[in-house]
Amino acid sequence: MSAKTVTLGLPQYAAVESTAANADTAERMIRQAASQGAQVICLQELCTTLYFCQREDPAHFDLTEPIPGPTTARFAEIAKALGVVLVLPLFEKRAVGLYHNTAAIIDADGTVLGKYRKMHIPEDPGFHEKFYFTPGDLGYRAWETAFGTIGVLICWDQWYPEAARLTALQGADILFYPTAIGWLLEERDTLGPAQHHAWQTVQRGHAVANGCHVAAINRIGQEGDTLFWGRSFVANPYGEVLAEASTDQEEVLIASCDLTEQEDFRRIWPFFRDRRIDSFGPLQERWGR
Amino acid sequence: MSAKTVTLGLPQYAAVESTAANADTAERMIRQAASQGAQVICLQELCTTLYFCQREDPAHFDLTEPIPGPTTARFAEIAKALGVVLVLPLFEKRAVGLYHNTAAIIDADGTVLGKYRKMHIPEDPGFHEKFYFTPGDLGYRAWETAFGTIGVLICWDQWYPEAARLTALQGADILFYPTAIGWLLEERDTLGPAQHHAWQTVQRGHAVANGCHVAAINRIGQEGDTLFWGRSFVANPYGEVLAEASTDQEEVLIASCDLTEQEDFRRIWPFFRDRRIDSFGPLQERWGR
Repeated sequence: MSAKTVTLGLPQYAAVESTAANADTAERMIRQAASQGAQVICLQELCTTLYFCQREDPAHFDLTEPIPGPTTARFAEIAKALGVVLVLPLFEKRAVGLYHNTAAIIDADGTVLGKYRKMHIPEDPGFHEKFYFTPGDLGYRAWETAFGTIGVLICWDQWYPEAARLTALQGADILFYPTAIGWLLEERDTLGPAQHHAWQTVQRGHAVANGCHVAAINRIGQEGDTLFWGRSFVANPYGEVLAEASTDQEEVLIASCDLTEQEDFRRIWPFFRDRRIDSFGPLQERWGR
Repeated sequence: MSAKTVTLGLPQYAAVESTAANADTAERMIRQAASQGAQVICLQELCTTLYFCQREDPAHFDLTEPIPGPTTARFAEIAKALGVVLVLPLFEKRAVGLYHNTAAIIDADGTVLGKYRKMHIPEDPGFHEKFYFTPGDLGYRAWETAFGTIGVLICWDQWYPEAARLTALQGADILFYPTAIGWLLEERDTLGPAQHHAWQTVQRGHAVANGCHVAAINRIGQEGDTLFWGRSFVANPYGEVLAEASTDQEEVLIASCDLTEQEDFRRIWPFFRDRRIDSFGPLQERWGR
């Protein structure tokens, strides 16, 4: 087989209060990524805002917008102009009182192919997402773009092998995970390294289990008591890290993925052939007893 | 919470032609493990035989025995005498013409608590298991033993997040993976490191996704064109490797697992709370489109 390579660009940056400033940062870094050869560029979770979920405040619903909407339109123009695929995570207003944590998928010709609404919503100290985000109801999807078939999951989804599997079953060659994860300052010294390790490991495991590439993009910077840990990365089907960003620097992570490697991998290890789907019914149960 | 520690023992050895000799090796290493403080001891896949699946030969069905049967009885006596829990993987004869790749779970008082029949059966060059093993029909289980609630999956199962999840949902605190995995000699130089990396990574991912400990026990030695890679290991819920054996040495790997760490982990990251079980139906499909 001849190589089929796709180059990914992951802009990692610190957010500020101004959504306009964040959007400008995103655009600047998208242009930088494209100039470095990136064909599919995935922005971080809630890419135009601070991570406002640290406390529950109804005023934050002012940050929402429809998808498609003004920001989608702006970035669709950029995608078209640069000829790149974009994954654009925003705070979606679906109706008054109904909001989602969503990513728009924009093809290289500017077409909005669809959107993914975050399915798994956390609620933990510093991460009060159940207040803000209605759990997604669009299921798990893959989109055939100009540069490959991609799937998108968002942050808390990344801990769930079911979500990765269901997206891979839709044909996704690359799983993108826009993310906002960090250390609570009080835990950083004790649990910090282990938490980061777990976060990266479980996603590398998804790459192996599904014979696909995985790309996680996380923000940096301190917001309130949370220090976002960056470390955006791309892994191949063997779970090997192809590229990894720093903990605290603004940077565009670039990684080239050879998709033919996936077929080589799946021929040697044909996991999809042998799944015991007849035994998977109890995955729909909360607990087994 | 006070610590609740359980010490695992994983005897890693090379098999020989004589099943009696292999059983003697297993007994010797179980006694060694117990003398080093092991409370739950898990033997490698097909622990009394060579890895005979490299070619298809009906004569190999002579290696089968019923479970419970003579080998189970022998090791149940050992378990009782030493006061240890044993996981004993054997080639099970269920009926004439009906055979399974099975593990017996024996409690510290010598009671055979039950058995696990390998659910996912590979069929690949050097691994002709679909000829020998009927896919398991007992499902995914967990057993409350004297030293903790344990689940058992076997080898090819280890690539399937669904199997790990279903076993964890049964309440397993530790997932044991008796294994026979190695490099085909022709692939070792090119793919060897990546294959080992993938194998360990996906299992460490299961530990993270389920907030449990994982213990994999693999054989060593060259059999035909396959070089079994050993590297038995134990990982904690953060996916960190607590202990790891060599690639080629007979050894008893000992690791102490603090099960209270699991509750600490699951309180911070309550993955089970948020599983979108309403969206998991398509996991029972072969492919998504």
